[in-house]
Amino acid sequence: MGSLERIRAVAQRIARTRSQGHEVIVVVSAMAGETNRLLALGHALSSRPDPRELDALVATGEQVSVALVAIALQEIGVPARSFLAHQVRLRTDSNFTKARILGVDTERLIESARNGVVPVVAGFQGIDEEGNTTTLGRGGSDTTAVAIAAALGQGVPCEIYTDVEGVFTADPNLCPTARKISRISYEEMLELASLGAKVLQIRSVEIAMKYSVPVHVRSSFSENEGTWVVREEEALESVVVAGVTSDTNEAKLTIRQLENRPSRIAEIFEALAEAKISVDMIVQNPSVDGRTDLTFTVSKVDLHKAKEVCERLLPHYEISVREDVVKVSIVGLGMRSHSGVAAKLFRILADEGIPIEAITTSEIKVSCLLPAKYHELAVRSIHDGFGLGRGQTGERNF
Amino acid sequence: MGSLERIRAVAQRIARTRSQGHEVIVVVSAMAGETNRLLALGHALSSRPDPRELDALVATGEQVSVALVAIALQEIGVPARSFLAHQVRLRTDSNFTKARILGVDTERLIESARNGVVPVVAGFQGIDEEGNTTTLGRGGSDTTAVAIAAALGQGVPCEIYTDVEGVFTADPNLCPTARKISRISYEEMLELASLGAKVLQIRSVEIAMKYSVPVHVRSSFSENEGTWVVREEEALESVVVAGVTSDTNEAKLTIRQLENRPSRIAEIFEALAEAKISVDMIVQNPSVDGRTDLTFTVSKVDLHKAKEVCERLLPHYEISVREDVVKVSIVGLGMRSHSGVAAKLFRILADEGIPIEAITTSEIKVSCLLPAKYHELAVRSIHDGFGLGRGQTGERNF
Repeated sequence: MGSLERIRAVAQRIARTRSQGHEVIVVVSAMAGETNRLLALGHALSSRPDPRELDALVATGEQVSVALVAIALQEIGVPARSFLAHQVRLRTDSNFTKARILGVDTERLIESARNGVVPVVAGFQGIDEEGNTTTLGRGGSDTTAVAIAAALGQGVPCEIYTDVEGVFTADPNLCPTARKISRISYEEMLELASLGAKVLQIRSVEIAMKYSVPVHVRSSFSENEGTWVVREEEALESVVVAGVTSDTNEAKLTIRQLENRPSRIAEIFEALAEAKISVDMIVQNPSVDGRTDLTFTVSKVDLHKAKEVCERLLPHYEISVREDVVKVSIVGLGMRSHSGVAAKLFRILADEGIPIEAITTSEIKVSCLLPAKYHELAVRSIHDGFGLGRGQTGERNF
Repeated sequence: MGSLERIRAVAQRIARTRSQGHEVIVVVSAMAGETNRLLALGHALSSRPDPRELDALVATGEQVSVALVAIALQEIGVPARSFLAHQVRLRTDSNFTKARILGVDTERLIESARNGVVPVVAGFQGIDEEGNTTTLGRGGSDTTAVAIAAALGQGVPCEIYTDVEGVFTADPNLCPTARKISRISYEEMLELASLGAKVLQIRSVEIAMKYSVPVHVRSSFSENEGTWVVREEEALESVVVAGVTSDTNEAKLTIRQLENRPSRIAEIFEALAEAKISVDMIVQNPSVDGRTDLTFTVSKVDLHKAKEVCERLLPHYEISVREDVVKVSIVGLGMRSHSGVAAKLFRILADEGIPIEAITTSEIKVSCLLPAKYHELAVRSIHDGFGLGRGQTGERNF
């Protein structure tokens, strides 16, 4: 959602889709910059604004959008009606600013659509059991859309309109040879989203996977097909590495010379969890004399709080932080059956002289934490090293 | 509600009131200019935006304010919690953009206040039976506040913070000798509000009168006592004329040579009512041969629609409109027992050479429609002619 011009364009697009005979339920996000503008107001009044009030505040962004899209649709002769979270009982837990959807009532939406009135639903917002306004975190409108598609029943597709053409093998801004992926599995998309590819909110992919919602990620600015996110068996042929992604929003925290006992480590991560801080990578380097260096990464916005938590728990230890790092990852279902993928990744980085600060792996991805200055170089060399680029032999045949 | 600075000032004021031992429930309106900004967005997309969607749109202004005031209160150590219309079940009819309050549940507000958490309620907004967002019309936050005070029980006072010091005998911008009124009756306030004194929404005065809510209209910018709006018997001494007010938002419509039959007149006002157009003054000048000139005034925003309605109903009649008019009125409970008030008014206008285009009266007011260019002159000469100014003999002894 950009300016009023964008809202008019969205209305035109909805009208076209509808004129092709589709019944449409629309979910909209806030206008460009609006969420940040609202957050800035809240943060101008308090360094730690109450999350409940922040949610009441930022949820207005989507409320403005739904009303404007409904008005724009009506103006071009398409009956439309806005719906807010409390009007469709889009229920979430009470985890303000990052609530999880528990359920949504689609009867009113279906009834409206059947009567030829396009329902325009506010994304990103929900209500908890007490009726408090909640929000779903950045990109939460994707999740609203997928959750509604899932609630509508098996096989209802969900189109996500965004400012890019689809999901790419790497960020095209970093890597000129990056290629749009036609079809990708939920599992791969989940890893890509978790690893910093901002095209879809992670939670939306989880829900899509759980309920087999076919998701089409495409550009609001063109009619081109984008990327379909589908079940693994529908992704035709799996390749070793589907894409490279990177994330500059993490920071590294290291505690030196910690006693190497499991209870000590547990205490630390319990304290962080209690402070609602998500930890991503965790690396433990055992050293001599039963002591260990513990390194982990958290979101940059949580770094200050994480450091405080650790300092309170461990007043006599050396705790250091580093912010100028980037996490670069490769993702691919094929890793499950191909060995040597991680080794190849480390070789590519070594050949470029890029030092690795931490490594984590899962069944279908490998992530490396690198000094931030190697960001572009690492993405490009990995992308081309695995043959993901246009015209390269590793290209998928979708 | 002005800028963030204003929000901080409001929070300080609430904190002071609370530290004086009062339990406080706060109702807030949108930040200055916000409602107009939102309306402009809606009107940019459509010349006749859907009232339901406009309400969903503009209600966000108050939602932003309540969250920000709650955050500002918390920041200075006052526990606070925002409430939206659907969270306190502030129910209205479905008359979008000018809905009437049907009821409000105050349990959650009382419970919150008892627990030391200041409830901050979004003014201006409501929900109808279907859960649609509604709004109460300009100044609707006054009405929200009075309705909540009324629901809290007998004698709970309602303070209305505004940008003026209280209710004046005339608009101080027009009339330099205008004086602040200390106490005024609901009846007089109702007429003043109806006649264009913008200090309180009419509906708020109606509810205050019905439930005997003492209303204190005062400045957000000073600690001075403002004007108390109270029952007639509490207004101590009634004077002939309490104040002079004027309204430039009306326009005049004249239909010439209409058949002078009651059914004809009824048809016209039925058609206008059906189009939801409020008619204010109605003047009928019988002429010879059973025909009559009918003049009435409507809000300027409704003039175009009113003219269309009349032209459709009366295609062969001469219909003229005039926009450069002002309605100047005097209000006072004393008129009920004093004769000659209207005569004195007409004499004052005649002495200044001001022509009168239409006259209407009620038990406690007289209104004259005048050419707009005489606005200031009329208000000043009437105000001083009735001895309402500072140091004049007609001054009330409150």
